[in-house]
Amino acid sequence: RSMATAARKSLTIGLIPADGIGKEVIPAARTAIEAVGSDIPPPKFVDLVAGFEHFTRKGVALPEETIEVLKNDCDCALFGSVSSPSKKVAGYSSPIVALRKILDLYANIRPVVSVSPDPSKPSAVDMIVVRENTECLYVKQEQQTVGEHGREARATRLITERASTRIGQMAFELALARPRKHLTVIHKSNVLSITDGLFRESVRAIPAKEPRFEAVTVAEQLVDSAVYRLFREPQIYDVMVAPNLYGDILSDAAAALVGSLGVVPSVNAGDSFVMGEPVHGSAPDIYGQGIANPVASIRSAALMLRHLGYTQAADRIDNAVDSVLREGQFLTPDLNGSAKTVQVADAIVKRI
Amino acid sequence: RSMATAARKSLTIGLIPADGIGKEVIPAARTAIEAVGSDIPPPKFVDLVAGFEHFTRKGVALPEETIEVLKNDCDCALFGSVSSPSKKVAGYSSPIVALRKILDLYANIRPVVSVSPDPSKPSAVDMIVVRENTECLYVKQEQQTVGEHGREARATRLITERASTRIGQMAFELALARPRKHLTVIHKSNVLSITDGLFRESVRAIPAKEPRFEAVTVAEQLVDSAVYRLFREPQIYDVMVAPNLYGDILSDAAAALVGSLGVVPSVNAGDSFVMGEPVHGSAPDIYGQGIANPVASIRSAALMLRHLGYTQAADRIDNAVDSVLREGQFLTPDLNGSAKTVQVADAIVKRI
Ligand SMILES: CC(C)[C@H](C(=O)O)[C@@H](O)C(=O)O
Ligand SMILES: CC(C)[C@H](C(=O)O)[C@@H](O)C(=O)O
Repeated sequence: RSMATAARKSLTIGLIPADGIGKEVIPAARTAIEAVGSDIPPPKFVDLVAGFEHFTRKGVALPEETIEVLKNDCDCALFGSVSSPSKKVAGYSSPIVALRKILDLYANIRPVVSVSPDPSKPSAVDMIVVRENTECLYVKQEQQTVGEHGREARATRLITERASTRIGQMAFELALARPRKHLTVIHKSNVLSITDGLFRESVRAIPAKEPRFEAVTVAEQLVDSAVYRLFREPQIYDVMVAPNLYGDILSDAAAALVGSLGVVPSVNAGDSFVMGEPVHGSAPDIYGQGIANPVASIRSAALMLRHLGYTQAADRIDNAVDSVLREGQFLTPDLNGSAKTVQVADAIVKRI
Repeated sequence: RSMATAARKSLTIGLIPADGIGKEVIPAARTAIEAVGSDIPPPKFVDLVAGFEHFTRKGVALPEETIEVLKNDCDCALFGSVSSPSKKVAGYSSPIVALRKILDLYANIRPVVSVSPDPSKPSAVDMIVVRENTECLYVKQEQQTVGEHGREARATRLITERASTRIGQMAFELALARPRKHLTVIHKSNVLSITDGLFRESVRAIPAKEPRFEAVTVAEQLVDSAVYRLFREPQIYDVMVAPNLYGDILSDAAAALVGSLGVVPSVNAGDSFVMGEPVHGSAPDIYGQGIANPVASIRSAALMLRHLGYTQAADRIDNAVDSVLREGQFLTPDLNGSAKTVQVADAIVKRI
């Protein structure tokens, strides 16, 4: 999965803090990247705008320029978080959903890992949710009509063999690289026999075409029971692969197992671009207080670098985060601490 | 919500055990109903067939006769659980999904309540998931085509103002009858602005039309964050109302909070019929050992009787279940006990 085949002279990183606490945690992630020094090519940061706040000011949630700069000038990017309007707002559509599609970032990779109190012991929770990132109900084909009994709205859920196969390949690849080599396919084909049937079949057909994946054991779970078992027996999961919406829900559910959404990172990955993104939202309730947890964004930066092939830099960041969490001296309120965003980031940077 | 306006001479109850452990737990629920004696009109039980096993034997998952008897002869029914084929099977479609629609059982009411160790203290977890039961992706309008890059499947997600309003009314009614009078509307309108937008709007518009509902406080949650918060702060929820699929996932998630899916009951309720149904599945892994937990089905029977207006009978069953769970002597393996289905049922029946 590495894109670092050719050596880069510099690494151009688009920063899109977007809304709310995104504006507090993306700067923290930047300091962590700056701290890894010569393990990566000299980073250049490009500040880019997007989000609901930008929409309310300028009437556009995802400026054309942001897209162009990402496509033409950036090697990778970090995205913060977007606010959702509390009522339907004409003309507004989520910029993160759009970016995933425009940049064809078809895989949303969300590792959910607890920090073991003893670094020599394995983590109690250690799984990766691999979420299809371009289709399902996220194609946003919706319309409303007026029928005999009032308004009727319909949305299309699209599942293709192509997208299911490529996300499946990504998931097999990730599973193969892990000690347990176990993949759970999430679906609801007892109700959605055609769409989820196609997802399931496409994923299950992969090892026959790529025999090296036969080393991976494959299980299946209906999404409802997958969430239930996630809480009861998290250890049964290693890598999970899911259609878009189930992956969205499952990764938030898994985050509850590791103490806080504030520590769960992700990358949106395609074949030629990768964008780190914390799994948490814009948290308007705490925005402005400087107490947002920067760990999810810092780990997202590490995951992005890892995806680009800078394993050593990624390890340094992750190890620094692990030790800060383990020490427990600098924790934000979501982890029952009283540290500020910048204090946690500083503590991590010192250990990088 | 009571349908017991006219006194009944007898109570005709359709029993549809269907597949797997459904065949072990529905008989247990029957013994509990029989035990309430004169608190209900003399019950008559009618054995009815449906399910995947019936489909494999007879080629039909939901016989016309089952539907006719339910419609014409029964006052209410108890449904067990259905198995899902492990591959797509031509001609098979889930009989429970079909029954909900055919009988217009538009509300799936799923109380998730823990048993407080001290009966004078409130339960730590005490919420009701009110799930829309007829539309969303469950309309099963799916088709597959072949495009340039392989197969493409599409499903329609239908949300109507009518169904959203009536499920909303049911949820407000239930919330109004509870001490906290709090309702959380679950949606994902940051992505599905038209379909989930309509669901949200329809529910929120209700109190203006029915001012007695103004006593209910209303909150909202995106489904992904709702599942996360369910695990972190279950006490924030009282009544939740959700479109079909989110309700399916949420109720399984909530079940993890109370120790086992084996204790969570539901009713599928319409304006003129009610059908009790345990939230758990057919559990092929334990079927045949006689160790399935009968509590979910017994509580579903109580919930069904409560819905019909037989409050006293329902209370007697629920109190008996509570004391058996509290005593802890007769628990099935899902609750870390070693009792058999019939032992638990007997213990409950004795206390009724
Ligand atoms: C903000 C929202 C559109 C987004 C999603 O549903 O994908 C978020 O929940 C996420 O998980 O990244
Ligand atoms: C068996 C299945 C079709 C059903 C559903 O999805 O509704 C089940 O999960 C439930 O919760 O009753």
